[in-house]
Amino acid sequence: MDFELNEDQRAFSETAFQFANEHLMPNAALWDEECIFPKDVLKQAGELGFLALYTPEQEGGLGLSRLDSSIVFEKLSMGCTSTTAFMTIHNMVTWMIASFATDEAKRAFCPSLISGDWLGSYCLTEATAGSDAASLLTTAERQDDSYIINGSKAFISGGGETDVLVVMARTGESGAKGISAFVVPADCDGISYGRKEPKMGWNSQPTRAITFDNVVVPATYRLGEEGQGFTFAMKGLDGGRINIATCSVGTAQHALNQAAQYLHERKQFGSSLSQFQALQFKLADLATELVAARQMIRLAAFKLDSQHPDATTYCAMAKRFATDVGFNVCDGVLQLFGGYGYIKEYSLERHFRDVRVHQILEGTNEIMRMIIARRVLSNAFAIE
Amino acid sequence: MDFELNEDQRAFSETAFQFANEHLMPNAALWDEECIFPKDVLKQAGELGFLALYTPEQEGGLGLSRLDSSIVFEKLSMGCTSTTAFMTIHNMVTWMIASFATDEAKRAFCPSLISGDWLGSYCLTEATAGSDAASLLTTAERQDDSYIINGSKAFISGGGETDVLVVMARTGESGAKGISAFVVPADCDGISYGRKEPKMGWNSQPTRAITFDNVVVPATYRLGEEGQGFTFAMKGLDGGRINIATCSVGTAQHALNQAAQYLHERKQFGSSLSQFQALQFKLADLATELVAARQMIRLAAFKLDSQHPDATTYCAMAKRFATDVGFNVCDGVLQLFGGYGYIKEYSLERHFRDVRVHQILEGTNEIMRMIIARRVLSNAFAIE
Amino acid sequence: MDFELNEDQRAFSETAFQFANEHLMPNAALWDEECIFPKDVLKQAGELGFLALYTPEQEGGLGLSRLDSSIVFEKLSMGCTSTTAFMTIHNMVTWMIASFATDEAKRAFCPSLISGDWLGSYCLTEATAGSDAASLLTTAERQDDSYIINGSKAFISGGGETDVLVVMARTGESGAKGISAFVVPADCDGISYGRKEPKMGWNSQPTRAITFDNVVVPATYRLGEEGQGFTFAMKGLDGGRINIATCSVGTAQHALNQAAQYLHERKQFGSSLSQFQALQFKLADLATELVAARQMIRLAAFKLDSQHPDATTYCAMAKRFATDVGFNVCDGVLQLFGGYGYIKEYSLERHFRDVRVHQILEGTNEIMRMIIARRVLSNAFAIE
Amino acid sequence: MDFELNEDQRAFSETAFQFANEHLMPNAALWDEECIFPKDVLKQAGELGFLALYTPEQEGGLGLSRLDSSIVFEKLSMGCTSTTAFMTIHNMVTWMIASFATDEAKRAFCPSLISGDWLGSYCLTEATAGSDAASLLTTAERQDDSYIINGSKAFISGGGETDVLVVMARTGESGAKGISAFVVPADCDGISYGRKEPKMGWNSQPTRAITFDNVVVPATYRLGEEGQGFTFAMKGLDGGRINIATCSVGTAQHALNQAAQYLHERKQFGSSLSQFQALQFKLADLATELVAARQMIRLAAFKLDSQHPDATTYCAMAKRFATDVGFNVCDGVLQLFGGYGYIKEYSLERHFRDVRVHQILEGTNEIMRMIIARRVLSNAFAIE
Repeated sequence: MDFELNEDQRAFSETAFQFANEHLMPNAALWDEECIFPKDVLKQAGELGFLALYTPEQEGGLGLSRLDSSIVFEKLSMGCTSTTAFMTIHNMVTWMIASFATDEAKRAFCPSLISGDWLGSYCLTEATAGSDAASLLTTAERQDDSYIINGSKAFISGGGETDVLVVMARTGESGAKGISAFVVPADCDGISYGRKEPKMGWNSQPTRAITFDNVVVPATYRLGEEGQGFTFAMKGLDGGRINIATCSVGTAQHALNQAAQYLHERKQFGSSLSQFQALQFKLADLATELVAARQMIRLAAFKLDSQHPDATTYCAMAKRFATDVGFNVCDGVLQLFGGYGYIKEYSLERHFRDVRVHQILEGTNEIMRMIIARRVLSNAFAIE
Repeated sequence: MDFELNEDQRAFSETAFQFANEHLMPNAALWDEECIFPKDVLKQAGELGFLALYTPEQEGGLGLSRLDSSIVFEKLSMGCTSTTAFMTIHNMVTWMIASFATDEAKRAFCPSLISGDWLGSYCLTEATAGSDAASLLTTAERQDDSYIINGSKAFISGGGETDVLVVMARTGESGAKGISAFVVPADCDGISYGRKEPKMGWNSQPTRAITFDNVVVPATYRLGEEGQGFTFAMKGLDGGRINIATCSVGTAQHALNQAAQYLHERKQFGSSLSQFQALQFKLADLATELVAARQMIRLAAFKLDSQHPDATTYCAMAKRFATDVGFNVCDGVLQLFGGYGYIKEYSLERHFRDVRVHQILEGTNEIMRMIIARRVLSNAFAIE
Repeated sequence: MDFELNEDQRAFSETAFQFANEHLMPNAALWDEECIFPKDVLKQAGELGFLALYTPEQEGGLGLSRLDSSIVFEKLSMGCTSTTAFMTIHNMVTWMIASFATDEAKRAFCPSLISGDWLGSYCLTEATAGSDAASLLTTAERQDDSYIINGSKAFISGGGETDVLVVMARTGESGAKGISAFVVPADCDGISYGRKEPKMGWNSQPTRAITFDNVVVPATYRLGEEGQGFTFAMKGLDGGRINIATCSVGTAQHALNQAAQYLHERKQFGSSLSQFQALQFKLADLATELVAARQMIRLAAFKLDSQHPDATTYCAMAKRFATDVGFNVCDGVLQLFGGYGYIKEYSLERHFRDVRVHQILEGTNEIMRMIIARRVLSNAFAIE
Repeated sequence: MDFELNEDQRAFSETAFQFANEHLMPNAALWDEECIFPKDVLKQAGELGFLALYTPEQEGGLGLSRLDSSIVFEKLSMGCTSTTAFMTIHNMVTWMIASFATDEAKRAFCPSLISGDWLGSYCLTEATAGSDAASLLTTAERQDDSYIINGSKAFISGGGETDVLVVMARTGESGAKGISAFVVPADCDGISYGRKEPKMGWNSQPTRAITFDNVVVPATYRLGEEGQGFTFAMKGLDGGRINIATCSVGTAQHALNQAAQYLHERKQFGSSLSQFQALQFKLADLATELVAARQMIRLAAFKLDSQHPDATTYCAMAKRFATDVGFNVCDGVLQLFGGYGYIKEYSLERHFRDVRVHQILEGTNEIMRMIIARRVLSNAFAIE
């Protein structure tokens, strides 16, 4: 066992932190306030490889492991939770195409997604198929060399302002096995976008419903075989859970760093707040939980990288634990800041709003518990 | 002991709920979104007596007890947390003037405050004197028949859009005993208002800093004697804590009602969510906590009404407990709603943002713990 | 609404506290250590009416309300949790016979149960029918003027050392409606007792399995009609839940009182522990929760006394909340005592062990959540 | 980073688990019930090297790292918490002598401590110096080639039945710098033992106070230099915290394994408990926390092994987190077992009692928070 970052990881981490400090942190409040989707900064992120961290090298990505990628995302999310979360979705889209698409589709989409010239959205969730993703209703009907897609997707990150969609649609029987995945240009005829959904947070990425009305895509834009879509989605989800959990931890760390500083500066009753034991203890508990959350993520990422049979369980554990801790830390630090935590002049209220959705997305934390329980009850969950 | 509402209480409760349903609930989302301070609706509230619930009858108020008032505020807050919270502040201001002002000042201010023609703000907190209110720096210097007020107040609810201020200022020695209270017309020469503070919630009431630069008020606008200000503030705070805690409970009850309905409607995995035992248990725990929180508030209000020597402790307990529970319930219901909890189309995210500040205001919940601990450690806290 | 104890309640409370101090507290450690069932002290309790608090006056009981009884049990449990808990069971047995038995059976059993000459056990639970009590397998077959009882009961408090049993047995169809209740002399032919069950706590009352092998009881010993047994059991349970929750609160209050004192006495790092803010805050939270727990119990008892349609829900809420709080307080105080909390020289570890079972008994707290959720989801739960 | 056990670690783990299964688990209930100190089994443990896991190889120990040792202790504690916890104390004593004693003392004590022929106790705590260990009052006065020890130690594990004591005593000024460490034969003239302290758990190891009345030890029995004692104690504590936290995790894992099995076996309401979603979720949360706790311990052990400057902070975090989780898991599993969790026929109540003390020992979890807060507030705590 070894808990040290290696040199490469330290270097990636540093680059990411610098990028976060220079390009994300100074703008994050404005992007939130005015709901700006910062395409230019995402393009800059692409130039550094941040949009294709774990996309295979032979397809033009950095080919990093999930663990390495998590180290990068953590630092980025210290600068802007919402923008980094979008990057993780874009990374998933890019990875999925680079991993499962036909050569034709890879050539058509990967280079621009990797560079950030194009941005990608991931279209799985439907209004009536949230946690129960396998019940999705969108259809893709084969017609000669094409598929005709019909249906609606809900809560699509980037929807309406991205260029490429990965769409899960039903090509066969009901349930998970009838689902196939497609890469779809976002401006195809028949695609229409709902209104920009007002949300509590995650405001630097637009969220829209997307309707597919007889949208024609070439059969070569199918990922893998018919019926493999849900398998790809599940593979994507394991990593997606690590990513979103990572964004919680990075944000919470940023909040905690501010708390430590604030407690020294703020004086009440003639002492700095750092002298108050109850606040010290609170800070200690938040810091401890946060270290545990980070470890859970790294453990899960390692299991995923090494294709451990329990990788899905570890990812679910990491997602449940780290997103709960991340929110709890942001909430606790907001409280330490008192009234200053509640106003937009400070960033705490934004962190609090942004990380809250991580407990819901990528499978709610209730779904995580279902996944974990099933495995623990099977008595096959290997403890070592 | 008797835990039933009496007929009057039921009648008040019903009237308040009707008002909330008709005038608050339909507008609350807009007021939040566009930061509208609904003076017209507040005026309507005044017509029903909601702006002077516990102001003595001889001064024109309804003369209700704190317990009765809490029953009213709970129902109102089901319609709009933030607007009701402002009403509770206005009630405190009105009560304070009606209780402690000179006859001249009563005549000058009470009628219009009671009717809602004028609105009031309460000016205690300063940027460096938050939890440690007694260390405030604003001064009021006697000069003949006037006082000259200098200093700044922070986080003033309604600030800049209200008509009457109750201001705590130092007329004597440092510490609590040197503080006096004044009623000050909000448009006096020398008063200037800071920018409207962007906040996470409580958006239907503006929050501004207020600066007093040689503001002259007649000595007859002093409440009580010199040096009594902090005593009045403390008296106000006990009731203020009940009020703010009440707003948490009312909001949480509204959220919980929506949850019960949503669980029946929303289907996943072929069943309505109400069939999932883990969600049932969650709902049960939230409902239980909420009943406990309401009881704590009523117990404290009763103790305050009956001038129990431990009233301050009970009020601190109620505030700590009920604002924590209120937030926890809103957070839990948001989670039950999943993605729909996070978007502004539903009200959950607003409730979540609005009640969060109740854990901070009127003395942070950390200050509540200090108050409670002191009393419990004195071994004089009467258990019966 | 009125949250004050009346004069009678104060008087009962005082008498009970005195009895607890004189007869229970000095012996509780020994009874625990040596697993002594203090029949003599129970007899003394009977003399004061503590064994028939809510048994109707016309049958010789004190005829108190559930609320009054709870006030008494709280004080008693400050002296010995386990012995008081047994008294509550005995009270239920006595009340059930006095309320539902034939005159013959009342005459035969009530006087001695009320005086404490005889002690009673309540026989509902079976090894395979714990939470799912209605699935019980013990049968009572009618034969002329008698019933023949066969089957086994598990975890019977007092079992083997009491004189009278109230036994739930199946006289008809499966499910709740086929169950009838019987009063059975504990020394009938065919009754045999298992070994005294070693337990973590509740050691002043023996727990045994009881086997009924063709036990003959006269039909006049049936309570009410055939098929009413489960209804009686449910009625008993509502009150039983209030009682057991009360024992948690009384014990926790006793623990908390010790904590307040200990924090003053114990010195570390040159100060008394009462000077450490984090410990103060802990104490404040425990005290607050405890006040809330007590209120929940009194609210539920009031609802039960006034036959409120939601009484069962309120009782379930009170039981869930107060037994969780009671344990949490005992656990928290144990921690404040450090090493001294863990050794038997102090009473904290006993309180911790004793109250733990209250989260399990009288319907586990999981069953409470089922009861509460059902009602909250029905949208019929009246909030006022 | 690498989260896999290597082959050696797997082998140690397996051997330890086998030993636990064969020699500890079958006897643990009896040792608890009858307060038996199993010297014979400890001797067998010594034969396998378990009494000198991290004692340097050149002194006859296994020379394992702290991380390796933790893997071993975790498996052992699955068999008997209390006995394994004693082994960890014995390991510390042996390591301390082997690391810091004179050659003469090493030769005199190490071989028999390593083999288990002799057992060791660690004497730091005093009645008035618990958390504030540096304020200890026991003195060691130099007289020619000897020291004369006077004073009393409290809560000494193994006290009265062990052979060798490591004693912290004051040779100089007040505070930490005046403390020296000595190895003392347990049967020296002038040593007397208090009564065996009845405790809630940890019953397979006796706990006694020890009084030193002019106890003479040769100066060669001093460890290191005068004034180094507290440094040694602190070094020992870091590892001691990992060890005790490990015993919590091993015990909790054992409890959790039983829960998974029990949920399948136990039927209520016509289904096995494993079908109830709320219980599934509970199990999932317990399993998740437990994985996090194990990771925290391994991270801390790694930091200690690699002499990371923040090792002490990581050890404090691991101790706080893992002992809280360990108790919480045992408590949660006890609840899942219902009434069967409370009786001694099953092991849950023992686990619950045994791990509770880990939140108190080796520095209470409150002391852990002080250590952590200090470091986090220093802004020097390295996050990576």
